[in-house]
Amino acid sequence: MAPCQSLFFLFLFTLASVPSNSLATFFPGAAYQSLLKQAKTKTSKPKLPFKTHYFPQTLDHFNFHPKSSKLFYQKYLINSDYWQKGAPLFVYTGNEGDIEWFAANTGFLLDIAPKFKALIVFIEHRFYGESMPFGKHSYQSAKTLGYLTSQQAMADFAVLIRSLKQNLSSVASPVVVFGGSYGGMLAAWFRLKYPHIAVGALASSAPILQFDKLVPWSSFYDAVSQDFKDVSLNCYEVIKGSWAELEAMSTQKEALSELSKAFRTCKSLRSTDSARDWLWTAFVYTAMVNYPTEANFMKPLPAYPVQQMCEIVDKFPSGATKLGRAFAAASLYYNYSRSENCFEIEHEVDSHGLHGWDWQSCTEMVMPMTSSKASMFPPSGFNYEEFAAICQMKYGVSPRPHWITTEFGGERIRNVLKRFGSNIIFSNGMQDPWSRGGVLKNISSSIIALVTEKGAHHVDFRSGTKDDPDWLVELRKQEVGIIQKWLNEYYADLRHG
Amino acid sequence: MAPCQSLFFLFLFTLASVPSNSLATFFPGAAYQSLLKQAKTKTSKPKLPFKTHYFPQTLDHFNFHPKSSKLFYQKYLINSDYWQKGAPLFVYTGNEGDIEWFAANTGFLLDIAPKFKALIVFIEHRFYGESMPFGKHSYQSAKTLGYLTSQQAMADFAVLIRSLKQNLSSVASPVVVFGGSYGGMLAAWFRLKYPHIAVGALASSAPILQFDKLVPWSSFYDAVSQDFKDVSLNCYEVIKGSWAELEAMSTQKEALSELSKAFRTCKSLRSTDSARDWLWTAFVYTAMVNYPTEANFMKPLPAYPVQQMCEIVDKFPSGATKLGRAFAAASLYYNYSRSENCFEIEHEVDSHGLHGWDWQSCTEMVMPMTSSKASMFPPSGFNYEEFAAICQMKYGVSPRPHWITTEFGGERIRNVLKRFGSNIIFSNGMQDPWSRGGVLKNISSSIIALVTEKGAHHVDFRSGTKDDPDWLVELRKQEVGIIQKWLNEYYADLRHG
Repeated sequence: MAPCQSLFFLFLFTLASVPSNSLATFFPGAAYQSLLKQAKTKTSKPKLPFKTHYFPQTLDHFNFHPKSSKLFYQKYLINSDYWQKGAPLFVYTGNEGDIEWFAANTGFLLDIAPKFKALIVFIEHRFYGESMPFGKHSYQSAKTLGYLTSQQAMADFAVLIRSLKQNLSSVASPVVVFGGSYGGMLAAWFRLKYPHIAVGALASSAPILQFDKLVPWSSFYDAVSQDFKDVSLNCYEVIKGSWAELEAMSTQKEALSELSKAFRTCKSLRSTDSARDWLWTAFVYTAMVNYPTEANFMKPLPAYPVQQMCEIVDKFPSGATKLGRAFAAASLYYNYSRSENCFEIEHEVDSHGLHGWDWQSCTEMVMPMTSSKASMFPPSGFNYEEFAAICQMKYGVSPRPHWITTEFGGERIRNVLKRFGSNIIFSNGMQDPWSRGGVLKNISSSIIALVTEKGAHHVDFRSGTKDDPDWLVELRKQEVGIIQKWLNEYYADLRHG
Repeated sequence: MAPCQSLFFLFLFTLASVPSNSLATFFPGAAYQSLLKQAKTKTSKPKLPFKTHYFPQTLDHFNFHPKSSKLFYQKYLINSDYWQKGAPLFVYTGNEGDIEWFAANTGFLLDIAPKFKALIVFIEHRFYGESMPFGKHSYQSAKTLGYLTSQQAMADFAVLIRSLKQNLSSVASPVVVFGGSYGGMLAAWFRLKYPHIAVGALASSAPILQFDKLVPWSSFYDAVSQDFKDVSLNCYEVIKGSWAELEAMSTQKEALSELSKAFRTCKSLRSTDSARDWLWTAFVYTAMVNYPTEANFMKPLPAYPVQQMCEIVDKFPSGATKLGRAFAAASLYYNYSRSENCFEIEHEVDSHGLHGWDWQSCTEMVMPMTSSKASMFPPSGFNYEEFAAICQMKYGVSPRPHWITTEFGGERIRNVLKRFGSNIIFSNGMQDPWSRGGVLKNISSSIIALVTEKGAHHVDFRSGTKDDPDWLVELRKQEVGIIQKWLNEYYADLRHG
């Protein structure tokens, strides 16, 4: 049995019933969104302080096949409220979703822009949001999707940034790139590949080592489990035990009807697997967004939601089933706002436009993950051949599992980068299971790891609030100080160069 | 009127008669090779101390279009005479021609391999020599040629090197890349883009700044002219004046017949342009290979051939025409070995398989060149629109003239690289006109420029001879010392990392 972390696996179980494969996704399509009502309110997007632009972008930067020079329009957002000519550009290297969603959840840039008189630019990643190279046909087949790669995305950023600075008549403006999660990987790699375009990168929660065999494959789920265990050993054990109860039900005749009732589903369940995935998603994403304040990233959640979940589990009367407790805990994730009367467990809404990650996982972004016996999830392995066969079946594409480490490195990263490169901050919160694939120790005097014990998935990028704990205020202050240093150095070089 | 530096311009004048465009080529197809007899001897290649291998290589590393995963066989040469497991790999990043030719002219690697117990690898660049992705159809159209780019070539190197080290069971072996001319650009860029694969690069005669407006467009021909002027002002003035005499002939009725006689052509000339190109090539390439010892790179030539040419010019009896003297000087280039009874001025033989550079010039490698009034060549400009129109006509492709500087940088290179990157030697000889587009000053303690006043096009890469002057012996010694330092550092890091 395998955990179902991504849309990929929804298809997997529906179509192929091939078990034992697990791949990484940062935000699995915000799957299992509940109730149409909520889906409707989601579409009325918050008003963001950005102006929308579209840039004519080249389809393929790395070959000159006649089809490569086709142009498409890449979306980007600009805030120039604080901008002064010559001052820096703060560029967010967009990741696998609508750029507005990342802009809405990266208030940090708006918070710090006045100090630097910076222009803020959020660039949408090709094949996400409105940046569709082939319009509504963009996801049609490998012939169109083939152009969705991280290197093409970075070349897009390079071309767009260079053109933008020329149009601003401010070519000497330094550029600092920012990114979180996959966007953070892109920010770090961008500094490494395009140092002539970005003077530095703040890569938050960027698991650039989650490839090949750079970190143990079980580290992600071990880390989720550790988050729960640290709060309550009982909580961890209840969740760990719940899967067997669910598994046992799948052999019973009346199980689906009973489970539908217990899980308060809006429609009768067709498979116990859905219930498992639903629970599983709740625990993983709650660990990721285990923020110190109330927040609404994937879902509205209270401060330190893992702790809240475990309180729910621990307070149950004795005699309650483990599955019932796990359901109650998961309900915090899906219904903290108490607006749900029932759960659309099998009705998936991709409200942030994240589904392209499935293709990326089948090509470059092969991040194998397994669940060890020590984790609170059911054990699962990773079989590359099966995985490759499914990608072949779905897209007619073969993954290149060693390409990312060939193109961007990772092996002996400390030895390589301490002699090469500069001006990268890798920030990670240890509550975030992705941190295990991140850079957690300083590499050199200017390739710096900022690690917080209580931080979660790119918490530093969220808007500051009055309730932020001291360690978070301090983390952001350190980041601002380091960026200031990069810029001082850049301007000094410019004057004397 | 424009100088005809490349095959490109041969076509240009024949087909389109569009003047005033000049683009860079390193070795323009060894055009104007004389006499079939010589062409025949050329094909019997010297026996090189290398074993030939072929590597299954991916057609397009940067997209996942179904056609991209096609494999082709990339040729590479190996010498393991001095190799000890764990010792370094010295990899030559092949350029725009048959790899054997570069291997035969890069004896430096064989000279220094014993000291380092290094494995020597010469990798052929895709679309040159035998490394043809579509066999004999490789040059058919932009649909096949489209995959001939520098980034694809570098990704080839990365994939091949990584695989090779695994097959050698020596993954911790450090790799140093070496390249001359375009291969030198690739070596330097490879260290910048793949620092996790190469610990350092020796880039000899690598004009990485010959793009966009990084250096004056007239610098190349100004430098050729300076080489001649430094030897003899009279020589410079005679050559400078010869073009007008040739131009004047083109209006005369009997000119071609007279010129054919004067130039001892095997067949009657069809155009005075051919004679101009023939002269022009001789002066440019003699400046490039103005080596301190007798050598046979493009052609057999004596030591310091520019000086020899000018002696011929200067010794002429007064009253001789400038054109006659220029012809006599050029004859040194074409007939130093005195084996030619006549010259095949319009019969071009591409004996080193260099013609793919024409495509590269029409896509990425846009290196605009003009001839200023100060040069000894007829004045010429560069009109981008005309140039682009010709590329469109020839290949159905539009050049991307700003792509190289976007992808690899170059603007404010000192400021960028003094804060980023390490372990690159840029070596240049000031006799080489390409040196004007090179890095001529140290950038940091480990990005080092080695400049010799009397050096010519990657002279340091030639096999050592007993006649080598002290400055050349010293230059190579410095290079070996720096490479030794990189390797010591690497091994120390490996022990302590």
